[in-house]
Order: sequence, then C-alpha cells, then structure tokens
Amino acid sequence: MTHRALNIVPFVSVHNMMRLVNAVGIERFLTELADFVEADFRRWPEFDKTPRVASHSVDGVIELMPTSDGTTYGFKYVNGHPKNMREGRQTVTAFGLLAEVGNGYPQLLCEMTILTALRTAATSAVAARHLARPGSRTMAIIGNGAQSEFQAVAFKALLGIDRLRLFDIDRWASEKCAANLARYGFHIEICGGVAEAVEGADIVTTVTADKQNATILTDNLVGAGQHINAVGGDCPGKTELHADILRRSDIFVEYPPQTRIEGEVQQLAPDHPVTELWRVIAGEVPGRRSVDEITLFDSVGFATEDFSALRYVHTKLTLGDFHEEIDLLADPDEPRDLFGMLHRAAAREGAQL
Amino acid sequence: MTHRALNIVPFVSVHNMMRLVNAVGIERFLTELADFVEADFRRWPEFDKTPRVASHSVDGVIELMPTSDGTTYGFKYVNGHPKNMREGRQTVTAFGLLAEVGNGYPQLLCEMTILTALRTAATSAVAARHLARPGSRTMAIIGNGAQSEFQAVAFKALLGIDRLRLFDIDRWASEKCAANLARYGFHIEICGGVAEAVEGADIVTTVTADKQNATILTDNLVGAGQHINAVGGDCPGKTELHADILRRSDIFVEYPPQTRIEGEVQQLAPDHPVTELWRVIAGEVPGRRSVDEITLFDSVGFATEDFSALRYVHTKLTLGDFHEEIDLLADPDEPRDLFGMLHRAAAREGAQL
Repeated sequence: MTHRALNIVPFVSVHNMMRLVNAVGIERFLTELADFVEADFRRWPEFDKTPRVASHSVDGVIELMPTSDGTTYGFKYVNGHPKNMREGRQTVTAFGLLAEVGNGYPQLLCEMTILTALRTAATSAVAARHLARPGSRTMAIIGNGAQSEFQAVAFKALLGIDRLRLFDIDRWASEKCAANLARYGFHIEICGGVAEAVEGADIVTTVTADKQNATILTDNLVGAGQHINAVGGDCPGKTELHADILRRSDIFVEYPPQTRIEGEVQQLAPDHPVTELWRVIAGEVPGRRSVDEITLFDSVGFATEDFSALRYVHTKLTLGDFHEEIDLLADPDEPRDLFGMLHRAAAREGAQL
Repeated sequence: MTHRALNIVPFVSVHNMMRLVNAVGIERFLTELADFVEADFRRWPEFDKTPRVASHSVDGVIELMPTSDGTTYGFKYVNGHPKNMREGRQTVTAFGLLAEVGNGYPQLLCEMTILTALRTAATSAVAARHLARPGSRTMAIIGNGAQSEFQAVAFKALLGIDRLRLFDIDRWASEKCAANLARYGFHIEICGGVAEAVEGADIVTTVTADKQNATILTDNLVGAGQHINAVGGDCPGKTELHADILRRSDIFVEYPPQTRIEGEVQQLAPDHPVTELWRVIAGEVPGRRSVDEITLFDSVGFATEDFSALRYVHTKLTLGDFHEEIDLLADPDEPRDLFGMLHRAAAREGAQL
C-alpha cells in the first residue's frame, strides 16, 4: 500500500465490496476467504476472545464483536432484527474495522453486510471440509433467504457440492434461490417439504430466520452419516433443531462460551460434550471418525471469522480500485495542538470563531 | 432531515467536525453540548450501562464504549497509546456511531477525536458547575497538552472562569496553550511549577498524559475549598494525585464500577465512599456542601457522555452542510435477495461473475 496521510482510513463501501467480489469472482473470493478463516482457526490460541457484547431490545439485538491477535485488532458492529424484513430492511446489517494494536489507528473501515454473508458461508464450508463425508455431492438447504445462495456457492467451491435440494415455507424464496444459482452448474430441486429435501442428502444446511425456538428438523428425518450445518440458530431462544438430533450427533462449535448461550446446544445441559472446531482444523482432534456418524456444526458466527474476513479484504486494498479514503482521524501537525487545528481550520474557512 | 436511502449513513469527518464547531462557535458548542451531557446524566437510570470493553497491549489500549437509552444505541471506538505522541500521532483517536434500537440501522458515523476533547471538557464543566465554589474565577491547569484549551474554554463558557495558571513540564506546551487561548479574554499566567499554579486557584484541573502512577499533586498543595478536576488519570496504573488528597476530598464519579478500576480512586479501598455525579445533577444528593470542602471530580469518561455528544451532533445534521453520506449498508430491493444484488451489480459493471 502506498504511504497515506495519518488522518485517512480506507473505506470499502457496499458498492465497492460488490465490485471487489465480482472482480475477484465469487467462487474464488469464497475460496481465498476460507483460507484466511482456516488459517486463523489454526492459530486460535493467539486470539483475544470474548463473547460478543450484546444490547438486547424487544425487537432485536445490536452487537459488538471484538478480537485481536496481538498485532491487529478488529471488531464488527452487527444488528439482528427479524421484523426488519417485513419493513423492507435487512434482518442483519454490519460493518467492521481493523486497527493496528501498536498505535490504535484504524487501518480499514468496511461494510460487512455482504462480507458477513460471505464469511458465514466460507466458515460453514471450512467446517464441512473437515466434518462431512468425503465425496459428498448433495446438500439440502432449509430456508432459502439471504444467506442460502452464499452457502451453496461456498460448498460448491470448497467441497464440490453440485446437487441442491431447496425448501422454504415461502416457495418464492426457493425460486429466487434457484434462479440466482442457475449459472453455477448445480442440479437443483425445489422440494415440497423438509423431509423430501433432507432425504438422502449428504449435507443438511438449516438457515431459517425466525427468532423463536423452532423445530425445522425433527429427529426422524436425520439419517446416519449426514453432516448438519446449522446456521440459522444464533441467539438465545432461536434454535432450529430438535434436541434429540443434538443428542445423536457429534457437535462441533466455534467458541463454547458463546455457542452454549446462542447456538443449538443452548437446548442441552451446559456440560454436554462439544468439540471446538479449531482443534479439528489444527489437527489436535479428529473431525468425522466414521461414515455413519452424524456430525453437526452448530454455527453462531464468531469474532475471529470477521477478523479473517477483514484481514482478507485488507490484502485486496493493494488493488487500489476498491476503496475510498475517509477523513476519520484528527491529525494535527503537533499532537498536543488539537485545539490550534480548530483555529487554523476556521482561518482557512474564513469563519469567525 | 430529508428522507434518505436505506443504504446511506451520514458521516461527519474531522474536516466537517471542525467546520461545524467553528460555524456554531466553540463556546456555544460547548455550552449546548454540556446541556445534552447534563440532560442525559439527569435520566441516568434509563441507560444500559456497561464498563468499556478494553483490549490491552504493551503499548496501549483499544476500547469500545457502548450504551443505549432504549431508543437510541451508541458506541465509541477509542484508543489510548501514550507513546503515539513521540511518533507524531495522537495519543487518543476515536470515532463513534449512533443507531436506532428498533431496527439496528446506523443513523450517524462521526469522528470523535475532536468531539471527545469537547465532551470531556463539557463534562468537567458540568461537574464543576455543581461542585466548585460559587464565584470561582481562577483555574490552574496542570498539563497543557491537547485537552487543556478545551477545558479552559468550557470553564469560561459554563462557569465564567477568566483567570488561568498554566503549568507543564514542557514550557512549550504552556506557551502553545496560552497562544491558542489569547483571543478568549483570559488573564493567563504561565507558572514555573505546580505549587505556584495551584496556590489560591479556585479550581485545579490536572490533565497530564503519562501512563504511570504519577503524583502531579501532593497533599500539601491542595487547600480548603478547592475543586479538583482530575482528568488525566483514566486507566489502570495511570493516576495523578497523591492518595492523601483523595482521603481529604469528597469524591464524585461517573460510573463507579469503571472509575474504581480506571480513576484516581483505584488507589483507595474498593469500598471508599464516592458519590455518583448523576445523583447530584438529578438533585438527589447535594454537590458541594460548604466553602471549605475539597471536592474532586475523578473523571475517566463514560459512554453516556459520548452518547450525549453524538446525539448533539446528530441534531446538527439538519443544518445539511456538515456531513457526507456514505454507502455503509447493503440495501437490496428485496431483503432476502442479497445474492441477487451482487449479480445485478456485476451486470451493471459489465463484469464477469
């Protein structure tokens, strides 16, 4: 990156994020992003980890998700408001920031509504690469909203999934999902119910959006050897799976203190055994151990994944064409003369102080 | 404010903050800001309060300071890196955000390096209005760095302080401070030592920057009836006053769980009596009770003050001329079609996906 003025922070807007993803190509973007996510999971002990800082209200939640690897600090602002969709707004919007630990100066401000969708899908695919049966080709996707296509394309790019079985209680959503995915070479079936979609699938992705305990999957539907990628349940009171499925599965999680509050496992005893995904990725413990085992990735989204995504986007700033520069930081010539900077600005503007 | 597209968030850059402060006039800005700070202290029980979320490193700290009044959510990102000054950077830089609790959408992104300096000074002056002797006219300022002039002007605007005694271990800083304040009508004396500056002052403001336990003020220097505005000590291990001064003073604090960790009172027993400033402002308890009492505002800066400052700046957006609009949020026509938005962006750009 070229030398920049101290007051300037690179900013990747939604417009530029879309341009960047399209310029890189979405499959390559997801693959490269997955490499960053996996690399950071592998060095998990290096990170400062804290459960997200949540501000709950009747209608939803606003969260700050900070982390640091000792050299770089990152955080994401993200909301979750299920009723937003009915008002023409996104359920989830987000932005994030990277900063240098050594001096606290921001290095990147970045939209993360799109980037979160990409990192969630990349993380699911990273987990499935370690947990799904080798040779998996068919994925059921239950819930065909904003996250569904990202999941599909990530699983194609990373695992070679090429057959999709879609189900949503609103058929329009399935048709939208199928239409968006038409160009990616999947064989796609829109199903009339959950049972039809799940039957015989190697991987079952649940990504519904209701903020309530729901039972999207009942125990009888899940067969030996399936990998369940449970993405939709991600806050207290919001779950998708019947507890009996959890009891039959080997459960893999991001950060247990957070997942026990927010994930599917909130339905289980607080000491129910779970395996940290990073230990699988680091080679400390096995992932899938047999073809008959039911594996479950209880995804809630963790701060390190956002950090990985911001870190990846930051490497793309060298392309030069996908960010603006915003004047976010005061930079007086003399640090002790912040006040004088105000006077000089007034003089430049010809204003009266 | 005019109707705006859902993807757009108003952004007040450093440049525009300086223009805004100069257009309003710094004394009026501080006075109006103080009214917002005081109004929010008065309704203190309405706020979600949490100690700041800090990420400490060898060189400094990066913090997130969130709060909410149930309708509006706000947070500030702020760093503190004492060594930055030696590298030509600000010790403290900051930015903040306001968002709507009901839908989680950001309403304002705002530089807060300058705004923090202003709100810190406004808060100190609000506290002194309740704690300093009536008729106070003389203030000593120990430490004449970036915050010093803001303190001086706030105390002039809110309390009528018109005589200043400046001291800094670097005389250049005092001269800079005096020069910056020349136009405000103060009688200013640059002093050769702390004792000379403090002697006979009605108010003593300490605002030094070292990250270490220092004793800027020793017990023998402080006389009956003085109000001490202790601003510089604001993190663990960073204090300015000798503990004996604290023992002789009536101590007023923002949010005890934070101040006991970060403030001057970290030197005292965890149950040493302190009074919450908001109770004084709300009229629940008295502030100063006699002319001889030594009052001490142990300022560390709390999230509600940033919230008040952002809320104040937000009201100024109606002026129309002091913000940019940045494309921070994804806003697909159909919330469930985030992926399709990417495709359409590619089509517009003529890119290959």
